[in-house]
Amino acid sequence: MEIKVLRNILEANEAIARENARLFKDKGVFVINVMSSPGAGKTSFILRTLERLKDDFKVAVIEGDIASKVDAEKIQEQGAPAVQINTGGACHLDANMIKNALNLLNLDDIDLLIIENVGNLVCPAEFNLGEDLKLMILSTPEGDDKPLKYPQMFTLCSVLVLNKIDLLNQTNFNLRKVRESAAKLNANLQIFEVSCTTGRGIDNWVTWLKNKLLLGWICRKRK
Amino acid sequence: MEIKVLRNILEANEAIARENARLFKDKGVFVINVMSSPGAGKTSFILRTLERLKDDFKVAVIEGDIASKVDAEKIQEQGAPAVQINTGGACHLDANMIKNALNLLNLDDIDLLIIENVGNLVCPAEFNLGEDLKLMILSTPEGDDKPLKYPQMFTLCSVLVLNKIDLLNQTNFNLRKVRESAAKLNANLQIFEVSCTTGRGIDNWVTWLKNKLLLGWICRKRK
Repeated sequence: MEIKVLRNILEANEAIARENARLFKDKGVFVINVMSSPGAGKTSFILRTLERLKDDFKVAVIEGDIASKVDAEKIQEQGAPAVQINTGGACHLDANMIKNALNLLNLDDIDLLIIENVGNLVCPAEFNLGEDLKLMILSTPEGDDKPLKYPQMFTLCSVLVLNKIDLLNQTNFNLRKVRESAAKLNANLQIFEVSCTTGRGIDNWVTWLKNKLLLGWICRKRK
Repeated sequence: MEIKVLRNILEANEAIARENARLFKDKGVFVINVMSSPGAGKTSFILRTLERLKDDFKVAVIEGDIASKVDAEKIQEQGAPAVQINTGGACHLDANMIKNALNLLNLDDIDLLIIENVGNLVCPAEFNLGEDLKLMILSTPEGDDKPLKYPQMFTLCSVLVLNKIDLLNQTNFNLRKVRESAAKLNANLQIFEVSCTTGRGIDNWVTWLKNKLLLGWICRKRK
């Protein structure tokens, strides 16, 4: 019974995610779903990314949280349009929440939409939102055993951002160990080491992302 | 439909949680449910607690994780009995998982049972396990906005452990702000500031816990 209901929920979610994906493609919007534990640095990472992209690209953000709107306010202070979704009790965003939030954004005026999911290494992985890219952040103080404990998130994401590299020496986080265990789960995982506090490594990530966005533009122009 | 099923699941969980609680009471076992984000330091905190209690109390641990048994192995190295529950995909422990795990422990030979829940600030809060005490850990690198974003966890726990106090100066974590916002949600919250790396603050916590355990013993002797 429970399993059947869960399957129905996931199937219904998939259908809406496909609709969202179609709409994003029509409008030429590249969409990133950012996931991590609470406090791994999703908002700081998005702010750093915005800072570097805002002169060249039109970026909007959807903020997902169980409660509060502190994150959307931080994004708006940077001058980007931001919509806050409060999930009530739900521990993840789903495709329908995104579909509703899109009513508050003008997709014709957006190149890149960044969705910050609820802080949770488990449930968000299961719910597609229609995004082009699933990105997860793991921060060094969380420990290097996370690929073993939360394998699904590492398997489903195509980008892993290792954040809080500036705290590496204050922790026993072993970069090589994480890279190895993550690669075992997902050989195609693209890994970036960054510090959103010092800014270290952000350039590499932004350069990679810009290439993706420009490639998308060229493809659309050829249509 | 979904809501009804969720309610049924929670009600079934409550019934088993009450059974577990009755059994714990009969056997004189005090039970703590330890919850936090991934990587906030649950296992390190339990190891520090074990270290200080093991000469005076008989402690066992149930380790909950989606996958892997690394945590149970760390506990066993400390000489305490440990049972590992792997939830498969589930993002929280439930009362029935605990009930099954109890078959692997001799409750007559245990004073304190510590349950380490799956790393998640959301779902574990909703599932009672039959415990005496819900404890949550928040670590300084996670940021001081967590009471705003995950209010239920702060409301339902009676102990909040602020961990990684040794990293306070490397973060912008504001202790006073967290204490205030947590107290607004839960005026009775008992707060401990600790570092599981340096050991700072662990004494305060262990003294408080010992008092609770001894008080329980005295009450049982009077029965």
